Amino acid sequence: SGADFLHAFALGVEVECRIGNAVYPSHYDVGWHITGTTGVFGAAAAAGKLLGLSEQQLVWALGIAATQASGLREMFGSMCKPLHVGVAAKNGLAAAFLAREDFTSSLVGIEGKRGFANVLATERDYSEITDGLSETWELLENTYKPFACGIVIHPTIDGCAQLRNEYGLKARDIASIDLKVHPLVLELTGKTNPQVGLEGKFSVYHCAAVAIIDGVAGEAQFSDARVRDPEVVALRGRVHATAHSEIDEDAAEVRITLNDGGVVEKRIEHAIGSLGRPMSDGDLEAKFRALCAPILPGDAAEQVLEACWNLDTAQNAGALAALTVPPGNDRVLHASDAPVLAAEQRG
Amino acid sequence: SGADFLHAFALGVEVECRIGNAVYPSHYDVGWHITGTTGVFGAAAAAGKLLGLSEQQLVWALGIAATQASGLREMFGSMCKPLHVGVAAKNGLAAAFLAREDFTSSLVGIEGKRGFANVLATERDYSEITDGLSETWELLENTYKPFACGIVIHPTIDGCAQLRNEYGLKARDIASIDLKVHPLVLELTGKTNPQVGLEGKFSVYHCAAVAIIDGVAGEAQFSDARVRDPEVVALRGRVHATAHSEIDEDAAEVRITLNDGGVVEKRIEHAIGSLGRPMSDGDLEAKFRALCAPILPGDAAEQVLEACWNLDTAQNAGALAALTVPPGNDRVLHASDAPVLAAEQRG
Repeated sequence: SGADFLHAFALGVEVECRIGNAVYPSHYDVGWHITGTTGVFGAAAAAGKLLGLSEQQLVWALGIAATQASGLREMFGSMCKPLHVGVAAKNGLAAAFLAREDFTSSLVGIEGKRGFANVLATERDYSEITDGLSETWELLENTYKPFACGIVIHPTIDGCAQLRNEYGLKARDIASIDLKVHPLVLELTGKTNPQVGLEGKFSVYHCAAVAIIDGVAGEAQFSDARVRDPEVVALRGRVHATAHSEIDEDAAEVRITLNDGGVVEKRIEHAIGSLGRPMSDGDLEAKFRALCAPILPGDAAEQVLEACWNLDTAQNAGALAALTVPPGNDRVLHASDAPVLAAEQRG
Repeated sequence: SGADFLHAFALGVEVECRIGNAVYPSHYDVGWHITGTTGVFGAAAAAGKLLGLSEQQLVWALGIAATQASGLREMFGSMCKPLHVGVAAKNGLAAAFLAREDFTSSLVGIEGKRGFANVLATERDYSEITDGLSETWELLENTYKPFACGIVIHPTIDGCAQLRNEYGLKARDIASIDLKVHPLVLELTGKTNPQVGLEGKFSVYHCAAVAIIDGVAGEAQFSDARVRDPEVVALRGRVHATAHSEIDEDAAEVRITLNDGGVVEKRIEHAIGSLGRPMSDGDLEAKFRALCAPILPGDAAEQVLEACWNLDTAQNAGALAALTVPPGNDRVLHASDAPVLAAEQRG
């Protein structure tokens, strides 16, 4: 049912966030893409819950997940970054199916001497996994992002877009854009001259430019064409960013100097999409529709949206999945494929 | 063709061994199961060769492989240890199919700052990957193991079995068995009292006992029943092993004291299955037949054997794979399944 699905989802998020917190930041600093490496635990826990695994089987499922944890930060900027998330989901699901067949793993796959936490991180704090379990919820510390790029650029985009809208700014009127940002922004997104759409997501300069010109930073702003557009390239070249350790991760200062000598400024304390200023339900729906547009016809997208809002009372969570299949797709996944996957992995 | 297949196989072995050599031993010492973590590169290279990937695509394939490298030594003694090898093969194959579709990865997935070699090892030597490429062959430094357990126990089993056969030893006549072994033997296989078959593979004591009683150490000697057999348990209790750093990894000294006070001894310089004393073709065939027995009828196993020996001149390497399907298996894998796998992973 939908309620079972949501229960499993919340459990999975909790498991992967808590394991991630236990090894962060050293795990990430070493070079692991934590979304991939801990996502496999969440998928295993969620699938294991839905499969009704015993306590012993759930331990095995987490162990089988641990030994498939992977995903390197070296891949950022390539197609492998989003692949990590899908691979984690697939491997976690397979782990749960294998465990259901009593496929064994180490009983200390996370905390053992040669387990996940010791091998993939230089420091660890297991109390992050166990303290306040079922009392505090990491799920509530997560938000949805409005823009199609890393969260660290969101304050900059938010500030630029707000100034654009408040003052009706045009790129041709702008002499320079000066940004004060958290140091991580330049470390992660310091590409001054992106050449393809994907690189645009790692360029705070590109993001500031499209926020001024388009007012948004959705998938369309990260196409190859948009990254190479002469107007965008020209404005990008007039963006300057400096790192300031006293600026919070979800804050930024934007100062725009106009050709006529005028200056407009905006200090963003909490970017849209942060816990301090989460997206509204309407924002979320708009983002969802925009993302669906290239894949699902409008009425199909509306059906998915309605099914999502009513998932808690749905008889069958699988109906939601069925609604997401684009018309004309000749390969429909059936639940019955899953045991085959597990059998192949075991074989 | 069979020749193409063997070419790809040799290439894959070379790639994974050389990458493994570049990060060994620090990578293994940290806690990685190197067979799994580097196997994914070999599978990607071999599959990529057979798929006719371009140089750029092969670089991507190795990058996609790098970011899926996984497998923890914590799993030794559980079903996950052999799973690592299958997962590596599956992920490497998927990496090659993805790369064929121009799925991108980092161009420095192995040597980049946050790439495989830097994240998964504390020391590295890239000359191990490139020196003597196409002149020296790691494949020639590999051998087949006669016994169904780790290579480090092979000298002990070899010595015990030889003494058994030379002197017609019976367990009831033996007062004690004293072993002098390389330190790694006790580190990896020091379980004095295994309870299930799998644990028997990690007990040099169990292996010595079955080598005396059965003369071999195949799958049958690592069943739950055999590990718990009273005669085996009793003899196992009279085995004593000590580590000596001056004893080579493929050597061992076995000293057996009989109830009548007599002593027989054997020093193994190079265990059967080592480079110094490789298995004969006949030994290999016997091992193959024994492993096939529970799965394939005798005549089917003979057909596979013949196809293997003639693979270099076979028109179609896939015919060998077809021969390995047990009769009555209702799921036959087709080559056409592979793109689906890649598509699923990409999706």
